[in-house]
Amino acid sequence: MGLQGQSFIGYRRGSTSGKVLKAFDPTHGTILEPAFYSTSKSEAEEAINLAARSFAAYASLDRHKRAGFLRSIADNLMSLGEQLVERAVSESGLTAMRIRNERERTCSQLRFFADMIEEGSWVDARIDRGDPERKPAPKPDIRSLQRPLGPIAVYCASNFPLAFSVAGGDTASALAAGNPVIVLAHYSHPGTAEYAATAIRDAAMSAGLPDGVFSLLYDAGIDIAHVLVNHPDVKGAGFTGSRAGGTALMKAAAARPEPIPFYAEMSSVNPVFILPGILQSQADTIAKNLHASATLGMGQFCTQPGIVITLDGSESFVLKFTELMLQTAAGVLLNRNISSAYQRAMSERPQRANITLKTATLDEPASSAETCSVRASVLETDAASWLADPVLHEEVFGPSTLLVHASGREDLLRIAREMKGNLTATILGTEEELADYADLAKILEQKVGRVLFNSYPTGVEVCEAMVHGGPFPATSDGRSTSVGGRAILRFTRPVCFQNFPDSALPAELQQANPLKIWRMEDRRYIQG
Amino acid sequence: MGLQGQSFIGYRRGSTSGKVLKAFDPTHGTILEPAFYSTSKSEAEEAINLAARSFAAYASLDRHKRAGFLRSIADNLMSLGEQLVERAVSESGLTAMRIRNERERTCSQLRFFADMIEEGSWVDARIDRGDPERKPAPKPDIRSLQRPLGPIAVYCASNFPLAFSVAGGDTASALAAGNPVIVLAHYSHPGTAEYAATAIRDAAMSAGLPDGVFSLLYDAGIDIAHVLVNHPDVKGAGFTGSRAGGTALMKAAAARPEPIPFYAEMSSVNPVFILPGILQSQADTIAKNLHASATLGMGQFCTQPGIVITLDGSESFVLKFTELMLQTAAGVLLNRNISSAYQRAMSERPQRANITLKTATLDEPASSAETCSVRASVLETDAASWLADPVLHEEVFGPSTLLVHASGREDLLRIAREMKGNLTATILGTEEELADYADLAKILEQKVGRVLFNSYPTGVEVCEAMVHGGPFPATSDGRSTSVGGRAILRFTRPVCFQNFPDSALPAELQQANPLKIWRMEDRRYIQG
Repeated sequence: MGLQGQSFIGYRRGSTSGKVLKAFDPTHGTILEPAFYSTSKSEAEEAINLAARSFAAYASLDRHKRAGFLRSIADNLMSLGEQLVERAVSESGLTAMRIRNERERTCSQLRFFADMIEEGSWVDARIDRGDPERKPAPKPDIRSLQRPLGPIAVYCASNFPLAFSVAGGDTASALAAGNPVIVLAHYSHPGTAEYAATAIRDAAMSAGLPDGVFSLLYDAGIDIAHVLVNHPDVKGAGFTGSRAGGTALMKAAAARPEPIPFYAEMSSVNPVFILPGILQSQADTIAKNLHASATLGMGQFCTQPGIVITLDGSESFVLKFTELMLQTAAGVLLNRNISSAYQRAMSERPQRANITLKTATLDEPASSAETCSVRASVLETDAASWLADPVLHEEVFGPSTLLVHASGREDLLRIAREMKGNLTATILGTEEELADYADLAKILEQKVGRVLFNSYPTGVEVCEAMVHGGPFPATSDGRSTSVGGRAILRFTRPVCFQNFPDSALPAELQQANPLKIWRMEDRRYIQG
Repeated sequence: MGLQGQSFIGYRRGSTSGKVLKAFDPTHGTILEPAFYSTSKSEAEEAINLAARSFAAYASLDRHKRAGFLRSIADNLMSLGEQLVERAVSESGLTAMRIRNERERTCSQLRFFADMIEEGSWVDARIDRGDPERKPAPKPDIRSLQRPLGPIAVYCASNFPLAFSVAGGDTASALAAGNPVIVLAHYSHPGTAEYAATAIRDAAMSAGLPDGVFSLLYDAGIDIAHVLVNHPDVKGAGFTGSRAGGTALMKAAAARPEPIPFYAEMSSVNPVFILPGILQSQADTIAKNLHASATLGMGQFCTQPGIVITLDGSESFVLKFTELMLQTAAGVLLNRNISSAYQRAMSERPQRANITLKTATLDEPASSAETCSVRASVLETDAASWLADPVLHEEVFGPSTLLVHASGREDLLRIAREMKGNLTATILGTEEELADYADLAKILEQKVGRVLFNSYPTGVEVCEAMVHGGPFPATSDGRSTSVGGRAILRFTRPVCFQNFPDSALPAELQQANPLKIWRMEDRRYIQG
């Protein structure tokens, strides 16, 4: 399939008159054909209008049909075969194996939500039966369930061209809930976006869905991002990207005449606390595992362990970890903005008080100034210096880890308390140490969406229990997760029916429970 | 018990140096003693600091102890006896019977949440068991549940001195979830607030809870409202009140360095659509029931039916309804701000294009200029005029209903489509008409939190299925409800534990399910 470069305005393709955007191959430092054309404001509005018009029909689509739609997106993605993989590799600098794994994850995520909506209990159906005889006032019959919000805008991530992009988790969960979706492609991987968009469009057409359930927009600038977040018919949004971009859009969402939920996943340093006991026997293993986690995908995971806190007795771990980071081959970051920001941080941070660059990033510049190649790095400081310098609390996106040495338990707890909101926090220790540091675990629980024990934060399992979220600035809304079963609830709200005749109720709430879902009936959980 | 007029800064009482606030009796037009003293900024900060320090201990308090605490608040409210009722009547102008009903509702709401947290399944525990043998990567053990957010600010409502105030739904649900609460009293009923605060404080002391789980602040101005919403240790807020106040505070919450969830319930016109078929036999009954709903508590319910849409054939209903509204005795509104706003609307709205005041509000001024007495009113217009005039889409707080005559089905559907977000919408009709107007029900479902059929919107049942919320501007966050089981989820977020040893997990997530709650285990609902 040849790439055409035009937006998808529902089922039609957009114009070729907009400003041109071309992808960049960060591995070879070359511009990639073809040209992609920025969506005009009026085309974006047309896409939103189509989405709004398709909403009612799509929201009440039979659950099996909606599940089938999600599964056929996954099938279509697989059918795109190696052309999709090759394009994503060229546009991201990620390896083909990584892209194949990400495609697998993207497809299994679509199937995960398909299974969930087909089973159906996710709607949280609640029934409180009426009682006309109750005194002093009759008790009404009250039934409620989660319903979709309306058209949802999805902003693609640079670092997951598939799993957090056009057909990624935001789109999958928003579509699963019954919302039309308008996606804004990331400038880094417009070709991958076009492939994924064809997979969704073809699945929608085959399922006979109304025009407008899905659109894909391109933009060489930032205008369309704001058109989406400000349009009155857009009722929610999902975003994965930088803190600057995310906070600008979340402020816009809050400042609208009618504010809307804006779910941004932004920045996280994912602190790892290593307790001394476990280092006695496992310093090398921990160094190896932590190195693997810190450099996975060249450190471009939102759960990359960016800060490691150690206590006395960590010398051999530090040596081994630093050695492994030093030995790591130079690798390519996603795009020039990201590689420049990384290089800038690696030249600026060692200038700060009491901070040492333990690796040779600066001495070994990338092999070509044209590519986005960088080396892994280790920085080191002490607790007091970290506590005193807010810059060191911020994420460096890429394969860099800051070691913070705490001189004792109080120091370590103070660091935990001063941490901002994060996606994850990890404790490595013996089980006895975990019990001994129960206060540390309690502090971390208040700071993050996921606390790990003797495990590594990269690799986010797609499952019902996953929480991939966390207090600001990790995300814009710490009550949400962008991965796992609860992700669907970001794009729904509860709606209640009072004294409705059975036949006029949604099937999920009808007396006979025709869908056989789990419901809460008169305060008890019952499966029909 | 004599009223003292000082804030509750945790377990100690605040100073008497702040600006003085006195309650006003709207029935007699008199000032009520004693003086209440505005909390200083430093006292408010002390209350927040105490709340933050008490959080960890309170959040992990045994569920039976927390339930017992809520129940003893209810018991203490009842023990206050008639002095509480009398004070609330004086401060609100509401009848003693209404206040007793509201006290009953407040207490049963506290007990409702006590039962819920004692049963325990509300935490939405989810477990996905690990599989170390899974290929290509081992599957981690992932377990998650809802945990409290931290100190919550509660802003009291004018119109429910008990049920949406100091010990009302926001406080009950926030405390039930494990959050400390700092309440800002409403200037209309500071004495009622003091009584309710003693009930909570005494219950907290008896339960041996840490100092700071509860505070009550007073303010003659609006400074403390902003201190609360802007303090970094305040992690969420609940508000019931005006659109102006609610939107100002929600913008402040969104503009913080760390934004927080702000749940404001603000304004709603609660449209009632009357279909012609049912009027053939029930015009009088509907007129009577609608009149009762529109004038309940002098129309000062957030679910008061403020707009009624009729089709041809509604003449006898309109006559009867207008007659009943005309015959309604003058009554007292909550305070002077509210009665002035009502009087202003009743003099301004009849000046607008094609709108008629069908009742004699203007000709019969309140018996005393000093009191807040007003009369019920009926305004009438046609669909085109309503559609053309945004002022008529806005709530008039008080016993006023606007009749909008639609000339046919399309007119009626257009009105439904142009409605802003509301708490409720009601359809009165035969079952055949409801089926015939399925498109109307679908439109309304997108506009409100609760859709009613042949029922009246006032009287919000406290039950698991209730949704007392709705899209903006009815509330700041249409994904939430301030009444019913789901209200507790406003003040929680999910937290996930990866590969934790069983003994280090919260009891809700331990393998043996010691609390015997319903959980989702490997995608199936199971009770331990």
